[in-house]
Amino acid sequence: MKKLIWIITCVIFITNARSEDGYRLWLRYDRVSDNQSLQEYRVALSEVRFLGKSAILDNAKTELLSGLEGLLDKKVSSVQSGESLLVTKPSASRNLTPTVSAEDLGKIGTEGYIIRSTIVGGTKKIILTANSDIGILYGVFHLLRLLQTHQNIRSLSIISSPKIQLRILNHWDNLNRTVERGYAGISIWDWHKLPDYIDQRYIDYARANASIGINGTVLSNVNANALILTRNYINKVAALAQLFRTYGLKVYLTARFSAPIEIGGLKTADPLDPQVQEWWKKKVDTIYQAIPDFGGFLVKANSEGQPGPQNYGRNHADGANMLADAVAPHKGIVMWRAFVYSNEVPDDRFKQAYNEFKPLDGKFRSNVLVQVKNGPIDFQPREPFHPLFGAMPATPIMMEFQLTQEYLGQATHLVYQAPLYKECLDADTYSKGPGSQVYKVIDGSLERHSISGIAGVANIGNDRNWTGHPFAQSNWYAFGRLAWDHQLSSEQIADEWIRQTFTNRSNFVATIKQMMLNSREALVNYMTPLGLHHIMATGHHYGPGPWVANAGRADWNPVYYHKADSFGIGFDRTRTGSDALSQYITEAANNFDSPKTTPDHYLLWFHHVPWTYQMSSGRSLWNELCHKYNEGVDSVRSMQEAWKTMNGLIDNERHAQVTMLLNIQEKEAVWWRDACLSYFKSISKIEIPAKYEKPIHPLQYYKAIRHPFAPGIGGNP
Amino acid sequence: MKKLIWIITCVIFITNARSEDGYRLWLRYDRVSDNQSLQEYRVALSEVRFLGKSAILDNAKTELLSGLEGLLDKKVSSVQSGESLLVTKPSASRNLTPTVSAEDLGKIGTEGYIIRSTIVGGTKKIILTANSDIGILYGVFHLLRLLQTHQNIRSLSIISSPKIQLRILNHWDNLNRTVERGYAGISIWDWHKLPDYIDQRYIDYARANASIGINGTVLSNVNANALILTRNYINKVAALAQLFRTYGLKVYLTARFSAPIEIGGLKTADPLDPQVQEWWKKKVDTIYQAIPDFGGFLVKANSEGQPGPQNYGRNHADGANMLADAVAPHKGIVMWRAFVYSNEVPDDRFKQAYNEFKPLDGKFRSNVLVQVKNGPIDFQPREPFHPLFGAMPATPIMMEFQLTQEYLGQATHLVYQAPLYKECLDADTYSKGPGSQVYKVIDGSLERHSISGIAGVANIGNDRNWTGHPFAQSNWYAFGRLAWDHQLSSEQIADEWIRQTFTNRSNFVATIKQMMLNSREALVNYMTPLGLHHIMATGHHYGPGPWVANAGRADWNPVYYHKADSFGIGFDRTRTGSDALSQYITEAANNFDSPKTTPDHYLLWFHHVPWTYQMSSGRSLWNELCHKYNEGVDSVRSMQEAWKTMNGLIDNERHAQVTMLLNIQEKEAVWWRDACLSYFKSISKIEIPAKYEKPIHPLQYYKAIRHPFAPGIGGNP
Repeated sequence: MKKLIWIITCVIFITNARSEDGYRLWLRYDRVSDNQSLQEYRVALSEVRFLGKSAILDNAKTELLSGLEGLLDKKVSSVQSGESLLVTKPSASRNLTPTVSAEDLGKIGTEGYIIRSTIVGGTKKIILTANSDIGILYGVFHLLRLLQTHQNIRSLSIISSPKIQLRILNHWDNLNRTVERGYAGISIWDWHKLPDYIDQRYIDYARANASIGINGTVLSNVNANALILTRNYINKVAALAQLFRTYGLKVYLTARFSAPIEIGGLKTADPLDPQVQEWWKKKVDTIYQAIPDFGGFLVKANSEGQPGPQNYGRNHADGANMLADAVAPHKGIVMWRAFVYSNEVPDDRFKQAYNEFKPLDGKFRSNVLVQVKNGPIDFQPREPFHPLFGAMPATPIMMEFQLTQEYLGQATHLVYQAPLYKECLDADTYSKGPGSQVYKVIDGSLERHSISGIAGVANIGNDRNWTGHPFAQSNWYAFGRLAWDHQLSSEQIADEWIRQTFTNRSNFVATIKQMMLNSREALVNYMTPLGLHHIMATGHHYGPGPWVANAGRADWNPVYYHKADSFGIGFDRTRTGSDALSQYITEAANNFDSPKTTPDHYLLWFHHVPWTYQMSSGRSLWNELCHKYNEGVDSVRSMQEAWKTMNGLIDNERHAQVTMLLNIQEKEAVWWRDACLSYFKSISKIEIPAKYEKPIHPLQYYKAIRHPFAPGIGGNP
Repeated sequence: MKKLIWIITCVIFITNARSEDGYRLWLRYDRVSDNQSLQEYRVALSEVRFLGKSAILDNAKTELLSGLEGLLDKKVSSVQSGESLLVTKPSASRNLTPTVSAEDLGKIGTEGYIIRSTIVGGTKKIILTANSDIGILYGVFHLLRLLQTHQNIRSLSIISSPKIQLRILNHWDNLNRTVERGYAGISIWDWHKLPDYIDQRYIDYARANASIGINGTVLSNVNANALILTRNYINKVAALAQLFRTYGLKVYLTARFSAPIEIGGLKTADPLDPQVQEWWKKKVDTIYQAIPDFGGFLVKANSEGQPGPQNYGRNHADGANMLADAVAPHKGIVMWRAFVYSNEVPDDRFKQAYNEFKPLDGKFRSNVLVQVKNGPIDFQPREPFHPLFGAMPATPIMMEFQLTQEYLGQATHLVYQAPLYKECLDADTYSKGPGSQVYKVIDGSLERHSISGIAGVANIGNDRNWTGHPFAQSNWYAFGRLAWDHQLSSEQIADEWIRQTFTNRSNFVATIKQMMLNSREALVNYMTPLGLHHIMATGHHYGPGPWVANAGRADWNPVYYHKADSFGIGFDRTRTGSDALSQYITEAANNFDSPKTTPDHYLLWFHHVPWTYQMSSGRSLWNELCHKYNEGVDSVRSMQEAWKTMNGLIDNERHAQVTMLLNIQEKEAVWWRDACLSYFKSISKIEIPAKYEKPIHPLQYYKAIRHPFAPGIGGNP
């Protein structure tokens, strides 16, 4: 019956020019549907005077005119006087004062912009200005966003600049175009056809990033291949860089630490070896010859088998500083990842990054940032904030979020991640007393660092709609918006994204916004409620595997993380256990110190708790676990119901897509619930309360499920 | 300078609803640009009466109405009387006679259709009819094609039916979505999300195939993985089959011969073992339970390491017949590939398929077709026809063409292959005397077989435009059209394809048609002129490698195929050599018997000729070789010139794409010429005549080129 439905739904979409395939992302520029707004916008924006010329400004002008023409559904005149919209840098026009003061301009720095309504000679006018070309481009995208979201533009007074300097996508893309943890096709980088073939996608990728303020992109996987640093590939990278710089997007690469051996013919990659240092300096010089504004390197070293300075008895600072010295003359930077875990299994993987990096605080060159994942383990549906945040005051710490949904349902689950990002950014580290939130560590304001950065592991592939799941686009969007301004709310970002991506119809916006805001908690509940973590199947991480106990090393096993036994469940990270808690500042650690002070959703992260433990709800821990898993499934069913009522409010094509994806999500939420409860029941020996749906299959069935071709296992070819 | 050009060209394409990304293929249905035709079509086709209802008919009606609405740019009425266009099966209407007679209907069989103009009660009317639902759908696409190509529809008298029964695409797609010899992204089959997610691409794939009469598709690689036959995957295949059957497209799979061992738990796959036979019967029964109209199997056995009946001392007929018996009760078929070469190196690989298969003629079950590549080696730019054509009169022989350009420039060369297909189809085997062309073998008419088939190895991937190179779409199109009617000319097919895909502007059509018709010969000239073959680099086959002599076995080496030495060049396949020529019927062999009777373009296929040999042009062989390589490069430069003058006649996006691709093609044509002539010069010891461009680099440079990540090396994961 279900199958019949899609057939009937699907066959009516004959592809034509108007089909919504998702390719346009949030930059659709369709005619403004609200008539009053449309009339107002037409009056306010039909005569555009755009001053200045450069590659970036030309792109800004093209975007503005074509955006306006789409939105206003009329020809927009480019005029030399009598304009209603003036776009100009202060240096190119004498007409800005008094609308824009020197003080205003001082506030927006090199990337910000000002958009103001004013009256000149009795005529209303909008002025868009910035100190730089890229500021103008960012301002143009802001203005277009106002129109796409049907905002009132009668008296604009917008002044905006980014809170974090480096706002960077990390592509875990291999040279053979597989994408590690990619669920949206293959890499958009068609290395084989570069440098001579410039795919239209590259242009639209740059536009999309510029529209949300992303200003850097690491093209290659952190599990790196040294070949990307050879001349042949640098020429390809240079072709991308040449295009991307016209959208303010800097190009970075990953540096394989053993490259001097692999492509340099040296016998060692010891960072203190002068020959090695010289090799990197020369290599960097040739890169900058081809790409004068090359951004620098991202490095994963001595982690999961990647080579690094420890291979030579050196530490992470030795390794990072060697590369930092090579790029420093060119104003390049090094982003050194703190996601390390050595081949020897530590007592608690939670603690390893802190143990290795905290002692190195102050030892890094000024052009090094240490890039830390949001949580101490690995991009779980929910993690406490990483204890390194606030623990290295002398070092600029960069955030690494994962937009691609490795542990969040991968290709098929609707999960809006802004609440996850915000939860971490808003956490208080107490490193300089109360109010030392993670976002102040990241934007550099807490320690007044001169450099700051935030990275998102991209969820982009060559699927027609870029991200596979139409709603996964929202995570790309939210990352960029929060990187620009971490004070935006998840709700506000969802609101603008929905309006631009789908429609401004108020019932759609309200319903879908709520659905998005609840979606992450729904996933936590049906996958890893109450602080469970890393109980996914081995390798591909697709689906549940809480029973797995035979992986190559202890801390690859789910049983290592949940520690369920006849007594109870959870990882004791207090003094009586691994004592990982002591890595936090005392005030922060206090929150997690005892089961009673620990919020329910972090409970099993820090405590091994008896099955019979009484939760704040009054339920036993076991019953609470059953309750949460079922709550997760119920939430997905509510999403299905809500989505169903949206039929007709948006295009059929994307409505049908999301309907099918929600059906899969519901099926998989049930799978997660039933597999996990079946397994935990076999440990707790307590029945699932009668009021809940029972698992359809015996535990053995769930254990036997295999996915030999689950996507996203990139490896390092 | 060149780089500057693309930047300037590219940045102006802001993606909007009207951008031409190639996704729509030849089914664009844009408003008819010729005003007179438009008016005529509007009068003739605005009132449609469509009788009958079924899944296929519903698709036909949707396609017709949405196609007409796009082309006529007006609402088309679906009426119950007073129609100007009547679409109906004869069984559903009494109004067909006398326009369509029973005799006419007898001619068109189960897939053909009739489109006729008539006058009923003084009113002009068009009648479209067919004996079957699928005939109606094919007729609808024909009618839409007439409009898309601005044909006169005033007095239609079309009667059409396919000359070959099975018109099948072969996808060499692996379960991990890599595509062996794929140059257009990854597989469009998203196995992970099947069966619950039906990608819009599947629908448009089915439409595109139906529009050119393709009625079958083999979803999986001939280098097969047995997992495709497990229940989990069969459910996924069934979801595709359910959709595809509504477009007349049957689904087939490849059968891994060792599947009974790998997924069946048996100890053997011996085709004469009753347990093995039983296993296949049961497996087939379960497949047909899920897919009642499953087409059958395609098998590659005992070739390039694939398992097969010879592993058990049995022959190809034993293997094929076992599978044939399993599918026979369900009316399934087996397509057994003749592309075999064993692990022992034969005296001449040219001869092996014939040697193994000819003795088996008459030994195959009636539901087996033997699928033979067009030439005896492997999809070279030019091959003589395969000697098996005409050599197995008791067996239905299926043609296998390769649409994907493994040896034809892969991702970046513009090569229209219809002339290649026609060259083979029109070759005379003389098997029943003169006039025994290959096409008569393939369509079954020569031996009055009750079953006939033709296969094309697909060039389709998940690139936005399906085939990577915009012109590669023409090979998919040409294959389908020739499979329907091998008497169509290359020119006619190019004409319709251009008009539908780009524009009807006469100067564009004329210029580009000529460019396409010349393109294959251009490639032959800059890659493998005068009968050279298989001199591509090892493994990926991208770029030249005539010097390669170290591959794992003799017949993987280019030197094996060109045999250049101080005396001359070419493979002696006459009696004094491998005597492969004796596999042809004498009259056919006579054409190639001596260098003098052999056409220049086949010369080195059959003869080892001295460098000083005088060609019909009067030039020495060496000079002729230099001449041809340069002619090839010159042809590409002419294509560039011609394309440049087309600027403005079509959309900017595709014009820029093809410009970039032609630039790459020119660069690579020069690479081919210079690498090959450098190498052959090192053997012939004769200088390249002064009038030709000299290679820029020494031979060593070309030998050192490596492409570790060239696309299309699928393997068999």
